[in-house]
Amino acid sequence: MPRILNEKSIFKTKLFNIKQADVKFGDKILKYEIISGNGKGAVLIVPIIGDEIIFIKEYAVAIDDYMLTFPKGKIDQHETIHEAANRELQEEIGYKSSNINFVKKIYLAPGYIDHFTYIMFAEDLKPSSLVGDEPEELEKIKVHKNNIQAFLEEEKIIDSRVYAALNYILNYE
Amino acid sequence: MPRILNEKSIFKTKLFNIKQADVKFGDKILKYEIISGNGKGAVLIVPIIGDEIIFIKEYAVAIDDYMLTFPKGKIDQHETIHEAANRELQEEIGYKSSNINFVKKIYLAPGYIDHFTYIMFAEDLKPSSLVGDEPEELEKIKVHKNNIQAFLEEEKIIDSRVYAALNYILNYE
Repeated sequence: MPRILNEKSIFKTKLFNIKQADVKFGDKILKYEIISGNGKGAVLIVPIIGDEIIFIKEYAVAIDDYMLTFPKGKIDQHETIHEAANRELQEEIGYKSSNINFVKKIYLAPGYIDHFTYIMFAEDLKPSSLVGDEPEELEKIKVHKNNIQAFLEEEKIIDSRVYAALNYILNYE
Repeated sequence: MPRILNEKSIFKTKLFNIKQADVKFGDKILKYEIISGNGKGAVLIVPIIGDEIIFIKEYAVAIDDYMLTFPKGKIDQHETIHEAANRELQEEIGYKSSNINFVKKIYLAPGYIDHFTYIMFAEDLKPSSLVGDEPEELEKIKVHKNNIQAFLEEEKIIDSRVYAALNYILNYE
C-alpha cells in the first residue's frame, strides 16, 4: 500500500479544500493534487413510481447548460442520509417517500477528488413540497424502465452518477 | 436559460482552476463555485477480449485506498482521443488496439466541476507496452460480461465512470 507522506491544504473555499500530497510507492515519491469536500457527502435519489422513474433537468453552472440528473444534494450536518434524501425529494420534485432505501456509496473520481454520493431508491411517493435553494423550477421527466437506454442515447449531457444509479435500478426488483 | 454574469478565477494549481460565478435566474442571482480543468479532458477505455473485459485496481490518493476502474488518463495537448486511449492502454495494461471506438462523452458532476471523460471501447488487443507515469504496476482483473453485476456488488470503491462505461457495454454487441 502506498503511503501519504505530506498532505497540506493549499486553498480553501466555502465548498472545496484543495490539497497537495506526496505519496511514496516503494522507493518512488510522486506529487498529487487533491480536491476535498468539507461535508458529509451527497445523496442522489431515484424516484420510482411503478415501472417509471423520474429524471430531472437541472442547470449545471460548470458547463453552462442543462444536464440530465436525479434529485440530489448535500447532506446537512444534522441529517441522516434518509432524511437528506426525503428533503431533497420534496424540494426538487414535490414528493416525499415512506420507503427510501440505500443502494450504494459511489466515488466520483477518487484519483483526485474525495467526493462521494449515496445512491438511494425512493418508492411509495406522495405529493409533498418543501422550499429549498433551487433558483428555478426543475423539469421532471418520467421514463419507463424499458425505454431508459433509448432515452439516454438522445441526451447529450448526463451527470455520471445517473449511470451508477441506473446500473442498480435495471437490476432491481 | 440562466445567465452567468461574473466568472473569475480565484485560485489556480497545476491541474485545477477554481472559479466563482454569479448566475442570474430570472430576477434571482446566486453565487457558485466551480472547479475547472485546464486540458482537453480524459479518456477511459474498456478493454474487451471476447466476452471478457479487463478492469484495473489503482491507488486513488484522494481516498487513500485502491479503486476499481478502467485504464484512463488525461489527453495530451497534441493527441486525438483515439491516440490517448491507445497510449493509456499500453502504459497501464500492456496492450494496444487496432479497433478503438468512441462511445459517449460523460460529465462527472457538472453542477460544480467541468471535467469530462470520453468513454472508449478497445477490441482486437495485442501485447504492447509503453512506459508511462504509473508509480506501480496495476492489477488487472478479467471479468466475464455475465459476471459483472456480482463482481461490482463485492467491490467497495468504484470510480463512478465505470458505471457509465458498463451501461454501454452491457448493451453492446
